[in-house]
Amino acid sequence: MKSQNANGSKVVRVGLLGLGNVGAGVAEILSTHGEMIEARAGVPIRIVKALVRNKRRKRQGAAGDVTLTTKASDIVGASDIDVVVELMGGIEPALSYVTDALAAGQTVVTANKAIVAAHGKTIFQAARKNKRDVHFEAAVAGGIPIIRTLREALASDRVTELTGILNGTTNYIVEAMASGQSYESALAVAQELGYAEADPTLDVNGADAADKLAILIGLAFGASVTRNKFGCVGITELTGEMMMDAAELGFAIKLLARARRVVTGGVETIQAGVFPYLVPLGHALSAVPDAQNAIYVRSDSLGTTLYQGPGAGGLPTGSAVVADLIEAARNVAAGTRGRSTVQPTRAGPKLAKSGDTVCPWYLRLTVAEKPGVLAAITTLLADESISLATVSQMEPSGDDNEVGIVMTTHPTSTGAMERALKKMHRLKVVRGEVQVLRVYAE
Amino acid sequence: MKSQNANGSKVVRVGLLGLGNVGAGVAEILSTHGEMIEARAGVPIRIVKALVRNKRRKRQGAAGDVTLTTKASDIVGASDIDVVVELMGGIEPALSYVTDALAAGQTVVTANKAIVAAHGKTIFQAARKNKRDVHFEAAVAGGIPIIRTLREALASDRVTELTGILNGTTNYIVEAMASGQSYESALAVAQELGYAEADPTLDVNGADAADKLAILIGLAFGASVTRNKFGCVGITELTGEMMMDAAELGFAIKLLARARRVVTGGVETIQAGVFPYLVPLGHALSAVPDAQNAIYVRSDSLGTTLYQGPGAGGLPTGSAVVADLIEAARNVAAGTRGRSTVQPTRAGPKLAKSGDTVCPWYLRLTVAEKPGVLAAITTLLADESISLATVSQMEPSGDDNEVGIVMTTHPTSTGAMERALKKMHRLKVVRGEVQVLRVYAE
Repeated sequence: MKSQNANGSKVVRVGLLGLGNVGAGVAEILSTHGEMIEARAGVPIRIVKALVRNKRRKRQGAAGDVTLTTKASDIVGASDIDVVVELMGGIEPALSYVTDALAAGQTVVTANKAIVAAHGKTIFQAARKNKRDVHFEAAVAGGIPIIRTLREALASDRVTELTGILNGTTNYIVEAMASGQSYESALAVAQELGYAEADPTLDVNGADAADKLAILIGLAFGASVTRNKFGCVGITELTGEMMMDAAELGFAIKLLARARRVVTGGVETIQAGVFPYLVPLGHALSAVPDAQNAIYVRSDSLGTTLYQGPGAGGLPTGSAVVADLIEAARNVAAGTRGRSTVQPTRAGPKLAKSGDTVCPWYLRLTVAEKPGVLAAITTLLADESISLATVSQMEPSGDDNEVGIVMTTHPTSTGAMERALKKMHRLKVVRGEVQVLRVYAE
Repeated sequence: MKSQNANGSKVVRVGLLGLGNVGAGVAEILSTHGEMIEARAGVPIRIVKALVRNKRRKRQGAAGDVTLTTKASDIVGASDIDVVVELMGGIEPALSYVTDALAAGQTVVTANKAIVAAHGKTIFQAARKNKRDVHFEAAVAGGIPIIRTLREALASDRVTELTGILNGTTNYIVEAMASGQSYESALAVAQELGYAEADPTLDVNGADAADKLAILIGLAFGASVTRNKFGCVGITELTGEMMMDAAELGFAIKLLARARRVVTGGVETIQAGVFPYLVPLGHALSAVPDAQNAIYVRSDSLGTTLYQGPGAGGLPTGSAVVADLIEAARNVAAGTRGRSTVQPTRAGPKLAKSGDTVCPWYLRLTVAEKPGVLAAITTLLADESISLATVSQMEPSGDDNEVGIVMTTHPTSTGAMERALKKMHRLKVVRGEVQVLRVYAE
């Protein structure tokens, strides 16, 4: 394929794979801010074609002016398309389209976290091999420029912690629960507002946040991981009781995607996972509202920085896609493709075993109201070298001689906590399941 | 000057102008993270020389290994230096060194807000003319990648508001005052901690924040302005009484550098200025702690995003310089200098007249305790079409028949407020100066 400079057409020609919410946002932004974008890119950017399933469906706004096709080959590998923007989601055929486009010498912009998280290696290898670029700012945290920041601004630094609220849907639901709503009704409202999909599984089980965390771990720590390599727990087991306990203890509950560099016995590992956490109310992440995303980064030279903004939505995500398009267009026009944007996945530190990850914990037990119960439990914890930070007995909730106990621990490995829980459940005085959450500590 | 690719030395050679706090940070980061930085830049980056006043002074850490010179011409225009890093501060000779370096074909990285704010046009013209780049991430908000974000991530968007805490020293002092310290003692502690200079004038009078705001206005709105074109009030007039009033009303006082796009009668202007504001406690900017900086950006597509982190210090600022160095090195090595990084200053919207800028206000008056006083004041305000949001009478502070009144207004132009204040001061029942602060509203 000839470059723009070579064929003299002086315009960067874009093909969209998908014209849904984000695709329409991209078309809208390019149409509304075309002049400004051309000034910044140094060359006009034009959407030449969009791949859709149904050509007859009426489309609103700028998306209505885009030429439609149902044949992928009109875009992928087509000689009149310089940049392929993949907005389909899912693994296939998106992955094949992306690698085929790179093989054909096209630049790729994608908003697809699933393929970058699960097949990043394949995609980046294809880019390097063909000396082309893959841009994926929109794949993580929508409108927050975290990919660019990790790649450019933090290029000079060594990241030691990255903790994010990477899924807006669950942040909205958890916040609604904190103000007294049930999980079910909060989810229903999130669906009404368009924050949650009809099938919200990948949001509420943490998988969406885990995919994004896997991508960020690659950039921040140079470790190549997929989401099935670290622990992941969603928000479906959170209860109103936990919310009230957290507030009383001075915390807010948030679903955090977290990765930290930890050196134990001279060996450096990354402790990573997606879990609901009790976050101290003074911490910036405790106050992230609505469906917003935020990423908190700690690094050697910079210290801590925070990046907060909208994590989803057609225009915010579209805006990230267009920022990538501007960068892509500059490189296409200057003939400097494949220059720098994709970092090789370096042989970074390994992930710690899930049992070795360490944090303080919150526990809530329902126990028989009789003497010696607390002693039995604390002895059991001490056997696993778990030391308590706080213990409080809650008001008896019913009339059946049971009482609630809320405890927080000092930092403890997940392995030790799991062993202690197993033993606790064997105690006759412990009724039902012990509820457990991690507590955020730096 | 030959480029690295041309002369085959395969290393990007850097000369530092100045080897103080930030210069030492740059040396330290390049030495500690050299391997990682080389991987990311694609080429080694080496400090060849540093210009200092006193060659004999002992320097700690990596700075101790740098070859020193007292002759600027060993760096500026020298054939063995690819990138000149200007860390001197002040206007001259820094400005001449920067333009001379560009004229000699060198790339420039600067952390000097003063020259970019006051002479940005000259510098960017020199860069364009010589097809070279000027990078200045470190000039604003130290370690927060706001320049990069405005230039790259927000390149696809239209910014409508930019509000920042751009001076860490004053943020530290104001926070300490909110917890009961006097201005003088808070300043003394800030000086002890190294946050404030021995002569803190440019911090506390707002000039430092105003310089940074002028730079950001250029990037965000395409308007070319210098700091003397908009209002600027520092923190020296803040009192403990104001702090207590603010807390009681649900606000924190912060020194904000603010610019907003406002359309009045079909004409778009930028309302800009640096002033102490009452910020509602729910707003992210109200909670920015210590000497941190933060920038809150509102734009058409993205909505609101927040960037928070350390605004000063050798390592954070050094880290921003090295991020720029990495970008510069990639361009030097690839022979793609002068490609894209400096935006021409476009003919953006004009600044609004200071009297036309609009916001809600906080007023504190000491008045004679007698009937009809409040009526006289509210009538006077009504004459200027100023409507009140809240009025509260404070406990009498002394025994001389005086009483404090605290009022907040609905949005009012600065012109109307100034006229009302003039009239108020003429009333016999008003004792002493009326204290006035702006209130932050979106």
